[in-house]
Amino acid sequence: MTAIWEPEARYRIWFEIEAHAAVKMGEMGTVPESAGKALWDWWATAPKIDVAAIDAIEAVTKHDVIAFLDWVAQQVGPEARFMHQGMTSSDVLDTTLNVQLVKAADILLEDLDALLAAIKRRAEEHKYTPTIGRSHGIHAEPVTFGLKMAEAYAEFSRCKTRLLAAREEVATCAISGAVGTFANVDPAVEDYVADKLGLAVEPVSTQVIPRDRHAMFFAVLGVIASSIERLAIEVRHLQRTEVLEAEEYFSPGQKGSSAMPHKRNPVLTENLTGLARVVRSAVVPAMENVALWHERDISHSSVERFIGPDATITLDFALARLTGVIDKLLVYPERMQKNLDRMGGLVHSQRVLLALTQAGLTRDQSYRLVQRNAMKVWESDGQLSLLELLKADEEVTAALPVEVIEEKFNLDYHFKQVDTIFARVFGN
Amino acid sequence: MTAIWEPEARYRIWFEIEAHAAVKMGEMGTVPESAGKALWDWWATAPKIDVAAIDAIEAVTKHDVIAFLDWVAQQVGPEARFMHQGMTSSDVLDTTLNVQLVKAADILLEDLDALLAAIKRRAEEHKYTPTIGRSHGIHAEPVTFGLKMAEAYAEFSRCKTRLLAAREEVATCAISGAVGTFANVDPAVEDYVADKLGLAVEPVSTQVIPRDRHAMFFAVLGVIASSIERLAIEVRHLQRTEVLEAEEYFSPGQKGSSAMPHKRNPVLTENLTGLARVVRSAVVPAMENVALWHERDISHSSVERFIGPDATITLDFALARLTGVIDKLLVYPERMQKNLDRMGGLVHSQRVLLALTQAGLTRDQSYRLVQRNAMKVWESDGQLSLLELLKADEEVTAALPVEVIEEKFNLDYHFKQVDTIFARVFGN
Amino acid sequence: MTAIWEPEARYRIWFEIEAHAAVKMGEMGTVPESAGKALWDWWATAPKIDVAAIDAIEAVTKHDVIAFLDWVAQQVGPEARFMHQGMTSSDVLDTTLNVQLVKAADILLEDLDALLAAIKRRAEEHKYTPTIGRSHGIHAEPVTFGLKMAEAYAEFSRCKTRLLAAREEVATCAISGAVGTFANVDPAVEDYVADKLGLAVEPVSTQVIPRDRHAMFFAVLGVIASSIERLAIEVRHLQRTEVLEAEEYFSPGQKGSSAMPHKRNPVLTENLTGLARVVRSAVVPAMENVALWHERDISHSSVERFIGPDATITLDFALARLTGVIDKLLVYPERMQKNLDRMGGLVHSQRVLLALTQAGLTRDQSYRLVQRNAMKVWESDGQLSLLELLKADEEVTAALPVEVIEEKFNLDYHFKQVDTIFARVFGN
Amino acid sequence: MTAIWEPEARYRIWFEIEAHAAVKMGEMGTVPESAGKALWDWWATAPKIDVAAIDAIEAVTKHDVIAFLDWVAQQVGPEARFMHQGMTSSDVLDTTLNVQLVKAADILLEDLDALLAAIKRRAEEHKYTPTIGRSHGIHAEPVTFGLKMAEAYAEFSRCKTRLLAAREEVATCAISGAVGTFANVDPAVEDYVADKLGLAVEPVSTQVIPRDRHAMFFAVLGVIASSIERLAIEVRHLQRTEVLEAEEYFSPGQKGSSAMPHKRNPVLTENLTGLARVVRSAVVPAMENVALWHERDISHSSVERFIGPDATITLDFALARLTGVIDKLLVYPERMQKNLDRMGGLVHSQRVLLALTQAGLTRDQSYRLVQRNAMKVWESDGQLSLLELLKADEEVTAALPVEVIEEKFNLDYHFKQVDTIFARVFGN
Repeated sequence: MTAIWEPEARYRIWFEIEAHAAVKMGEMGTVPESAGKALWDWWATAPKIDVAAIDAIEAVTKHDVIAFLDWVAQQVGPEARFMHQGMTSSDVLDTTLNVQLVKAADILLEDLDALLAAIKRRAEEHKYTPTIGRSHGIHAEPVTFGLKMAEAYAEFSRCKTRLLAAREEVATCAISGAVGTFANVDPAVEDYVADKLGLAVEPVSTQVIPRDRHAMFFAVLGVIASSIERLAIEVRHLQRTEVLEAEEYFSPGQKGSSAMPHKRNPVLTENLTGLARVVRSAVVPAMENVALWHERDISHSSVERFIGPDATITLDFALARLTGVIDKLLVYPERMQKNLDRMGGLVHSQRVLLALTQAGLTRDQSYRLVQRNAMKVWESDGQLSLLELLKADEEVTAALPVEVIEEKFNLDYHFKQVDTIFARVFGN
Repeated sequence: MTAIWEPEARYRIWFEIEAHAAVKMGEMGTVPESAGKALWDWWATAPKIDVAAIDAIEAVTKHDVIAFLDWVAQQVGPEARFMHQGMTSSDVLDTTLNVQLVKAADILLEDLDALLAAIKRRAEEHKYTPTIGRSHGIHAEPVTFGLKMAEAYAEFSRCKTRLLAAREEVATCAISGAVGTFANVDPAVEDYVADKLGLAVEPVSTQVIPRDRHAMFFAVLGVIASSIERLAIEVRHLQRTEVLEAEEYFSPGQKGSSAMPHKRNPVLTENLTGLARVVRSAVVPAMENVALWHERDISHSSVERFIGPDATITLDFALARLTGVIDKLLVYPERMQKNLDRMGGLVHSQRVLLALTQAGLTRDQSYRLVQRNAMKVWESDGQLSLLELLKADEEVTAALPVEVIEEKFNLDYHFKQVDTIFARVFGN
Repeated sequence: MTAIWEPEARYRIWFEIEAHAAVKMGEMGTVPESAGKALWDWWATAPKIDVAAIDAIEAVTKHDVIAFLDWVAQQVGPEARFMHQGMTSSDVLDTTLNVQLVKAADILLEDLDALLAAIKRRAEEHKYTPTIGRSHGIHAEPVTFGLKMAEAYAEFSRCKTRLLAAREEVATCAISGAVGTFANVDPAVEDYVADKLGLAVEPVSTQVIPRDRHAMFFAVLGVIASSIERLAIEVRHLQRTEVLEAEEYFSPGQKGSSAMPHKRNPVLTENLTGLARVVRSAVVPAMENVALWHERDISHSSVERFIGPDATITLDFALARLTGVIDKLLVYPERMQKNLDRMGGLVHSQRVLLALTQAGLTRDQSYRLVQRNAMKVWESDGQLSLLELLKADEEVTAALPVEVIEEKFNLDYHFKQVDTIFARVFGN
Repeated sequence: MTAIWEPEARYRIWFEIEAHAAVKMGEMGTVPESAGKALWDWWATAPKIDVAAIDAIEAVTKHDVIAFLDWVAQQVGPEARFMHQGMTSSDVLDTTLNVQLVKAADILLEDLDALLAAIKRRAEEHKYTPTIGRSHGIHAEPVTFGLKMAEAYAEFSRCKTRLLAAREEVATCAISGAVGTFANVDPAVEDYVADKLGLAVEPVSTQVIPRDRHAMFFAVLGVIASSIERLAIEVRHLQRTEVLEAEEYFSPGQKGSSAMPHKRNPVLTENLTGLARVVRSAVVPAMENVALWHERDISHSSVERFIGPDATITLDFALARLTGVIDKLLVYPERMQKNLDRMGGLVHSQRVLLALTQAGLTRDQSYRLVQRNAMKVWESDGQLSLLELLKADEEVTAALPVEVIEEKFNLDYHFKQVDTIFARVFGN
């Protein structure tokens, strides 16, 4: 990902745009056909791009594209003077940025595929591994660890769909001249270059490609980062000393802390939490970039020099790191079961409540019956058993036979739709 | 738009979800068929929702959904106790929020259609109205006012596409119980309610509908707001005293300022600039809402109570206001022409530059020839004419015949592709 | 807090500014002295502000200050025509906004005092209540619950200092006319009004009071909100089922969940987490408001109509809610001790490590000795005791006498500087 | 500024903290006095920091501070094992970050001083250069260019005050051990190191220095960036083709555009507009960093690795660039006068309005008399003269003698308080 944003990579895209345009202009008779040929012949020699030399010219001209054109002209010779005919710098710069963002999106899409594959594998592995579901950080009802993974899979699948749309948003090419009127360059040139680069033509540009496209692109990166944060925080919670249902992989050579040798800290997912903030921070500046003055101002450019590489490289790194975390996550089913059991069966209270209602009690009566026993269990810190208390509560047994009460504490009851959910998420 | 977010509207959606669910549970034998019937029979009487009464119950129970269910039970009678069987509050709350956002999106889509229609009308009206194109706030080359409108049309068309996708993101329904396992409610109930409400089922929910969907929704609103800002700032620039190429409509009774009676201020578009900031401010909180703890925490809720109404109502207002501004915008073609002419023909320098290059001069030679004459015009503040200076420059006339130079100052030359661009943007 | 932002409150401040200015202009002979007298005489009758009537005038004039002046003129009679001489609307509007923000700051300062008092009380109560300190969510070394409170106290004390500075930032008054030149109003009027309102004069205004002041104000609110979030998240963590060292107060009548009667959810602090996002969302728009065009544009106004009330009312509510949470927080020292003990003494490993180093082993040797015993404890899930293992490890006992090892497991050792820290935070 | 953030600079600060701490521990007898001596003796040899070697160790230990300590131990020998006794990594890391931020603040304070000096010089130079004041982009009343500069001076003076406070916020030192209890390190060590580094002690730390301090620091940078944006946008407006009252300095060798040789674009200030967005983007992540879990998590760290260098380096660059722009700004007083005159005297309408009111007409009558003449001037695009029209309006002359009307068009009238304002802003 870093390579996309190196000066050399940028200059290579610049060259391709100029050379493709020269070929088409040659075909159309705007410039000699020899111009495009000379450019591509030189290119075929796999020339090194001398970034320092171009920088030196720019230091004088204070204009990056002119500096580049001058340098190419020095290499290729007089035919190069036909480059850039009727074009404006932004034709090159903006199309290049979009090529870079498309390449970045392609890498991020691969990252997402790798992450989805890792999540899917762990989902299937733990499809029926029981664990407590928590709302508000409080034990609620049983779920499976596979279901947690299935949710993540569905979420990152949505991220992929959004990224495909975001990629399409920025996959455009503009070769339309100083104010977008094609006054000195035929739209056929734009068509040709767009086609060669695998882009669509920008329907109407105004020297620049409109920045709402890029705002949307970075907004999608921000949403993906937020989903990364969600899964990272899940791992951080599971690794807490008191919970310890899962842990980031701990390599033998690794020291967790300079002072406390027993500690295994979820530093990768804490790091991801921070990186999510970093990627998200690109969103508002990208939106502030939309409202350029008239046909263009250049305020967007300094912003993009930061957020272009930073947001894509960080997200690439974060997705790869998260994939590693999930892939190698140490999962502890015994501890999950232990945590499930620690509340003395309170997690089954909802089922008892329903059974009482269905047995004819009002909602309120049922609620009070369950609540008075549940509170005893709660206050015993899980030492008392809800099942035993209910079986000893005459008002309860008056409404429900003991065997019915017992059935309500069956864990498998909660997992009967896991297969349905998996089919929705992973297909058949 | 405001009506969507009133308590009464929310309660009406709540009722529909519960009643649809009760019907399906009746069909499936989970509850008596009479329950759903009783609910809909009562609903058919068009009952008033007594918001104050529900609030009074909530003051005691401190739980909004229970309060509502209690109130409905008071109205409908004993059959109502079968409502909400196996469901959890979030099944109702989250599905309701999505219904509200879908309704909001539908209004915003209508707003966008109205805006697009207004822009299109002005685009066609001024398809060939010449005006100066500006980059960096500096005169560049001629465009038409219609092209400015065409760009806005293309941009808001993209906004519409994005909003349709965002609407689809949040058009889901979850009736999956306390932790999303359907332990006590069959997925068929979710299917049925989703179908009745015109929603898709949420493939995997975890008490709550995942908030990446909502983050994406509000991000799209933020991008639309940024495009509003762009067009608003264009109008503000055009209305500047020194430019004055267009003005917001000025109604006869309106006083522009308490102290300066001659002033006509672009207050509507300035207001829109501020409103864009307001809508955008919903984006980051919506992204921060994604990383809920485990199966859910309720931190998203207070955020959504603000940004749900604020962002949608503000955007609705802003789109309508912008539509009015564009629709009634006072456009001054004479002033546009006057501004075009004020630079002594400098805007045609690019064409002369190209002609010199094509006549065989190097890029650098051409540049210097044009530049030395252009600088004289510049320093005369447009009193000297570039055309006359060039015709008097022997090095120039040595390369280009006078009639060729004159042809380079023809305005229509710039507009030959306007039709192509319009065809791209508006079709046919 | 809400009252500050009501239309009537705003009009009352408007009146006072206009009336004070009229008095001073009367003194200076700019207007008849009777004008100010007439205004204050009317005011002394405690007149009702007829918001609807003013709105009706504004609907025609489309200018809020003119509408208000017209209405006052209707009430007071011909003397009122001398109001607002040489002033501009923003003189009134901007000074009013600052008065409102100062009043809001005063309420927030009281809120902070109440919060600080609650925190201090709990800090003293639990000055020596042992609890485990956690880094990365993992047990580290012992702290006391009082120390957690002391940190919060220090943090909110800083918030108070910042808010005092922010209050001073916005405590300015501008009565400087249409572009801030005092062309038609003497600076003495500004001096007089500022003094009457307890404000400083704005050294140089440009029709508007510069918005960097307000940006700073809202930035401070955002930082305070973030500190609220920190303490709220601490409580949420402590209330987790597996931790349960503290709980939000649970009133007898409250139902935690419609389905799970045993649940006590930390909904207040979850709510605070969301509200922190809301307050923070005002920061960037407030900063975007700074760059007004030339001497002013009105884009800031629509932003301030949202963030002015929203950020201050929300923060006021949040501070009060947090004060309630801390004040009534159920703290469970037994559970804290139980959690402290659950790791088999691993939390003391750092002290043993140091002792070994001081006994002459290298850092690396010491680390390995501790680590090999600590890992056994870790893998036993706290069933084995680190102390016992160390005492049985001959390499350890070769370096350290048993009684020295035992001393390293003394909890009080960690609390010997608690008093020092308390003295730093709370004074003496 | 970049140097502050280089790895070597960071390691140098690490060393100083460790060595100062070792000295104090030696004094107190915690470690041999020879330890500190050995460290400083080695330091006195001005050793090169071998960043690559430290990195290589970190690749194995996966812990940056341990890697550094190991490397120093290799250099210094056995005495080095007494380094870091009872300390935790964060004692070093957090204190180092604060040292870096303090150094950064010092550079930024110098930047602000340079900017203030440049602004002041231009303010004095143009104290009485008349120019039109604009509200809403529309001509309002005359100001002077010096007043514009005075406003900027006052604004950046406030920025300096804020930055001094922000510097103080982060000028703290924590050497308090694994959870901030000073269990294994005496507070006297912290006192000593803080004093040596010119910092205050952190009253209560929790392994980490609380991040509300840093949030405040970056918030202040965001406000400064917003003030930069304001002045940058002022220059961009002034350089617009139609306004052209000032221009960024244009060096002879500079080409403004590859295609339009006559263009002089305000690219520096456009660039600054973008950089302001970049600096501002650090604010929200810095606030999100506040709510660390319990005594610390490490999510803040990845954020700070970005925003620490990016925000400070960018702001340093931006302040220096803005200083250059202001220092060399080409100011065109003739053009300012020309623009002032172009509205046919409408800018004086407010004074006439006041005179009519003072002559006994009602506000409304006066308003209508001025407005009917002003509108004629407006519609003539400044070809008609308001003064002449008023003198020909019998209703006006019935109220005001001609010589009084003429006096109202005197430009100097507006500048009589310039000196007062300058005294407020610049003193004496």
